[in-house]
Amino acid sequence: MTNKKNFEIAVVGGGISGLTLGIALHSRNIPVTIYEQASHFAEIGAGVSLTSNAVQAMKHCNQGIYEAFERVRTKNLWPSKEKVWFDYHDGYHHKSDPKETHAFTISNSLGQAGVHRAHYLDQLVKLFPAERAVFGKRLESLERESEKEGGKWVLKFHDGSEAKADAVVGCDGIKSSVRKMLYGKDDPRSYPTYTHKYAYRALADMDQAVEAVGEEKAKNSCMHMGPGGHMLTFPVQHGKILNIVAFHTTTEDWPDYNRLTRPATREDALKDFADYGHDVISLLKLCKPNLDIWAIFHLGDNPLPYFAKGTICLIGDAAHATSPHHGAGAGMCIEDSAVLADLLADENVRSQQDIEAAFEVFDEQRRERGHFLVQTSQHIGNCYEWLAEGVGEDFKKIEYEINSRNAKLQDVDVGAMCRRAKEQLQVKLTSSP
Amino acid sequence: MTNKKNFEIAVVGGGISGLTLGIALHSRNIPVTIYEQASHFAEIGAGVSLTSNAVQAMKHCNQGIYEAFERVRTKNLWPSKEKVWFDYHDGYHHKSDPKETHAFTISNSLGQAGVHRAHYLDQLVKLFPAERAVFGKRLESLERESEKEGGKWVLKFHDGSEAKADAVVGCDGIKSSVRKMLYGKDDPRSYPTYTHKYAYRALADMDQAVEAVGEEKAKNSCMHMGPGGHMLTFPVQHGKILNIVAFHTTTEDWPDYNRLTRPATREDALKDFADYGHDVISLLKLCKPNLDIWAIFHLGDNPLPYFAKGTICLIGDAAHATSPHHGAGAGMCIEDSAVLADLLADENVRSQQDIEAAFEVFDEQRRERGHFLVQTSQHIGNCYEWLAEGVGEDFKKIEYEINSRNAKLQDVDVGAMCRRAKEQLQVKLTSSP
Repeated sequence: MTNKKNFEIAVVGGGISGLTLGIALHSRNIPVTIYEQASHFAEIGAGVSLTSNAVQAMKHCNQGIYEAFERVRTKNLWPSKEKVWFDYHDGYHHKSDPKETHAFTISNSLGQAGVHRAHYLDQLVKLFPAERAVFGKRLESLERESEKEGGKWVLKFHDGSEAKADAVVGCDGIKSSVRKMLYGKDDPRSYPTYTHKYAYRALADMDQAVEAVGEEKAKNSCMHMGPGGHMLTFPVQHGKILNIVAFHTTTEDWPDYNRLTRPATREDALKDFADYGHDVISLLKLCKPNLDIWAIFHLGDNPLPYFAKGTICLIGDAAHATSPHHGAGAGMCIEDSAVLADLLADENVRSQQDIEAAFEVFDEQRRERGHFLVQTSQHIGNCYEWLAEGVGEDFKKIEYEINSRNAKLQDVDVGAMCRRAKEQLQVKLTSSP
Repeated sequence: MTNKKNFEIAVVGGGISGLTLGIALHSRNIPVTIYEQASHFAEIGAGVSLTSNAVQAMKHCNQGIYEAFERVRTKNLWPSKEKVWFDYHDGYHHKSDPKETHAFTISNSLGQAGVHRAHYLDQLVKLFPAERAVFGKRLESLERESEKEGGKWVLKFHDGSEAKADAVVGCDGIKSSVRKMLYGKDDPRSYPTYTHKYAYRALADMDQAVEAVGEEKAKNSCMHMGPGGHMLTFPVQHGKILNIVAFHTTTEDWPDYNRLTRPATREDALKDFADYGHDVISLLKLCKPNLDIWAIFHLGDNPLPYFAKGTICLIGDAAHATSPHHGAGAGMCIEDSAVLADLLADENVRSQQDIEAAFEVFDEQRRERGHFLVQTSQHIGNCYEWLAEGVGEDFKKIEYEINSRNAKLQDVDVGAMCRRAKEQLQVKLTSSP
């Protein structure tokens, strides 16, 4: 592991997938460069939820990735709620008495663990050598040199510059360019589709939130369920601010694939949640008059039949973009990074042909789990909104669905997954002609 | 954890589930008695396959359970095959050239890990206090005392004797009596159903097997696939004997639910596998003229909607009897024992009411995974026999099905499962009125 490999990996995209993979590869002594299209990480405040499998994967990639998470994570404010993931409430009935809303509580060993995406990325980028992270690089095309010339990929960027690498990993998220280059721009699998849910995202002052719904609901993570809509809330910024995300299901199509957010008003939100209970209405009233709506797209309608081809590989949202209802999308990205880094670091991976074998094993080992996440996330979002067949408004059944699916996502052994992948790679490398 | 609980658990059945649960409870200082209907453990030589999740669960139950496994396990004989689970062969084509049969290899961190069921039970029983394991006790009925009398279960046995306990755990296997008492004898869910596969079980001399199929195939675990049939072979008894199990799919019903084995001949087997390749035929010819057929029953047609009710709980095959095609049935039993032992050992579990809550959590945490095992095992058995829809005879797809499903069964964190269950128990105990 101390010898540098004589190949070079290009990571396209510097989000959570790209940075965790970059850091994991770099700390395994594998030459890697990250190309990010944005000029810096100044994203609006998307909260990212992380679970115990994600923590294992962070540590497996690199201990620093885990330490960065611990520095920026927000917990529930009440110590008694330390292990609570969400308190689930009936956000619809009990309009007069909000004391009666509690439906059930979902706990886990990590409790509620959210990070502000931009804050986390700021920490992660410090773990990666600055000269190896290149910003402002929008990928325009991928062309492969002939075998004679060396068989490398030539990455051409929008600014006219070029770079070369032996293999390309697309970490470029839900609207992945690398995916489009792999499948072709006329293939429907190149594009995510609308789940027919959108979300209002807003922040409220914590003191006002406490006044509106009481301390317990304001200072700890809550999921307010209702018919065709649900609202999740959790404290951010050391408890000074309450983060609010209010999802609404609609039959209307999303107007513009190129813009997955659009401006909206507090009045729009109040209309969508008109019949909801005291807590949901009171919290919406605290929001600013101008809000954003965020369209929930995913890859669930056209799951990718392969994540890798030759020396190109997709990981994270580029491979399995999911709706956010399990809070498990980011964790799956980091698992991908752990597995792929271990495969590429294997001492028997030396040539472009070996990288192809490693990518093939990555595909075989990760595809099923990626697809499962996308499907179960959509299902669980419908459970929160009493829309799931055979589950409906039965809280006992909703609780069971959440627990049993969280268990599949979280109670895994990421180290064992990595070992299995490496073993499968040995089989492939030794049995190939 | 040092204080003895003031309740008593009756474990019905002294197989792998009952003994691992009994040992786990006893080492957690919980009063427990095992009631086994057989007078001793003298079973015909069924091989039991174990995987990495099972090893974790053994250690979680009690380190001695793992050490017993290490004492009796058989590995592949070639050191180069240490991590090989099975070499998969085309057992049907290549009739003239058995060198061409190799299809793919499935590896994992544990490699092939089989034990002779009776040998393993012999080791396990030594870890449990003799005065707490009562043999020759066939359960006839369960009656509950009134609350006033103490609310205990009265177990009445076929020999006229009785025993009392606060709670009953049915570990009594595929034909569970406790299941029948829980669901009622007229309920179809009380009975397993036929998967329309049966298996010939036989042993062959290793030297003869080497002569028949060569050293590599004889001394290491192999799965010979074919249309509507498959044969698995692996060395047992320190490599002196080759264990052979040959499965055949049939449209005929099984004649007698009360007898799940029936006598057959080598000629019957040769008829069932008449069109198969050199290796399968040669190995069948090594078997003794008189063989047993073993009917593969399971609970997949009528999955249990609950594993527990009040102070009665089912674990292992009693809850989710499976076909053997994943080699994962015994591991799931031991996982059940680990989770249930941790729940009952929780310091807040003190009364019969608390036990009810613990059983409820067990049901919620284990049901989905138990059902998954049964379904995936049936599917994978069909993959081996080229009968699975969308998979057929495509070896690449069969390999993918095996790997992705093995990953779900094996790459879990049993400790995390136990922690999740205990956290859910806290939620239940503190939120109950």
